[in-house]
Amino acid sequence: MFPRPSLRMAARLTFWFEFASTYSYLSAMRIADAATAAGVRVIWRPFLLGPIFAAQGWPDSPFNIYPAKGRYMWRDLARRSALYGVPFRQPETFPQNGVLAARVAQLALFRPQGPAFVRAVYGAQFADGADIAERTTIAACLDRAGLPQHFLDDAGSPDNKAALRRATETAMQMGLFGAPSFTVDGELFWGDDRLEDALRHAFRQTRTAGA
Amino acid sequence: MFPRPSLRMAARLTFWFEFASTYSYLSAMRIADAATAAGVRVIWRPFLLGPIFAAQGWPDSPFNIYPAKGRYMWRDLARRSALYGVPFRQPETFPQNGVLAARVAQLALFRPQGPAFVRAVYGAQFADGADIAERTTIAACLDRAGLPQHFLDDAGSPDNKAALRRATETAMQMGLFGAPSFTVDGELFWGDDRLEDALRHAFRQTRTAGA
Repeated sequence: MFPRPSLRMAARLTFWFEFASTYSYLSAMRIADAATAAGVRVIWRPFLLGPIFAAQGWPDSPFNIYPAKGRYMWRDLARRSALYGVPFRQPETFPQNGVLAARVAQLALFRPQGPAFVRAVYGAQFADGADIAERTTIAACLDRAGLPQHFLDDAGSPDNKAALRRATETAMQMGLFGAPSFTVDGELFWGDDRLEDALRHAFRQTRTAGA
Repeated sequence: MFPRPSLRMAARLTFWFEFASTYSYLSAMRIADAATAAGVRVIWRPFLLGPIFAAQGWPDSPFNIYPAKGRYMWRDLARRSALYGVPFRQPETFPQNGVLAARVAQLALFRPQGPAFVRAVYGAQFADGADIAERTTIAACLDRAGLPQHFLDDAGSPDNKAALRRATETAMQMGLFGAPSFTVDGELFWGDDRLEDALRHAFRQTRTAGA
């Protein structure tokens, strides 16, 4: 049989990110171009690592709990940023509280400017040295992405707060234990260094289903 | 000035591996070809993760302590093995005791057949389902690599045992916290997915020093 392009579903990948996560920064900055090149559509999903780490018995980032791992991570992140041409400066506070940013991102991602907002928040934290827990930082990121300031207040609605809790529960049920993660039809990929594997899997999956 | 090839030191990278480590398996199977292609010489160094994990408060492999992480690792390992064309079958026992294998490897690596012995041990564990803590398994690996059986007894000498303890202490002093790791003049790279970064760094380092 010949493949029938009109019956093919677009290849889709869900990108799970946590604003406090350093390697999520790398993926956030490069996923749009990488996915376009691979012919894959990206669903951006913010979630919170805090409750997932707590369930594993970690009261803090493992990069703080295990100093050798933490020292290595900052060095590796600087090297990988350089490799990808992404600006990087180690923030004074780590991890930062990304709850407000995640709540606003949920609203922003209903708009085409959503990814630009997400990148603005990551850039504020890991390139400009700002604190993303500050309302003024998030306000500036909304401006930069061309999104309305009222998202800051809307983000605190009970529905929107519940949606972020649900996203985190869904992540845990799908077996996520870190960020960034990528899922394609229930298949899980963890870490910025698995982005290419995940995109390849999404592309192949669709080709098989559509042939 | 023109570069003077005769004055250039060969690019060198130290490959730190633990026989119980799943991702060390992938690196062990592919590093020889990858390093040759990159023009880098590899120093193979077995060490033990047990004392390093114990210092971080882990009485077992983190893949056993954190089940979500463990489930993911086996899936990821199967996918990555397929990607590299490396045979893979999940062993019944994990982690296995690799102390005897590491002691014998130290002696084997004084001979040109050393890397072949290391690959034979990893293959026995992760492709053939054997237990590398068994003396008979290691005996068969020596045979396969064309190395003498008396290495099995020689491996238990006080000097050789002390050498493995020293290797592990050196690893910890260099900031190693997992395996595989790669070091190039004190610069640390962790994980099979950083092998290419490490080789590139080794190659560049030498080019800069020798130019």
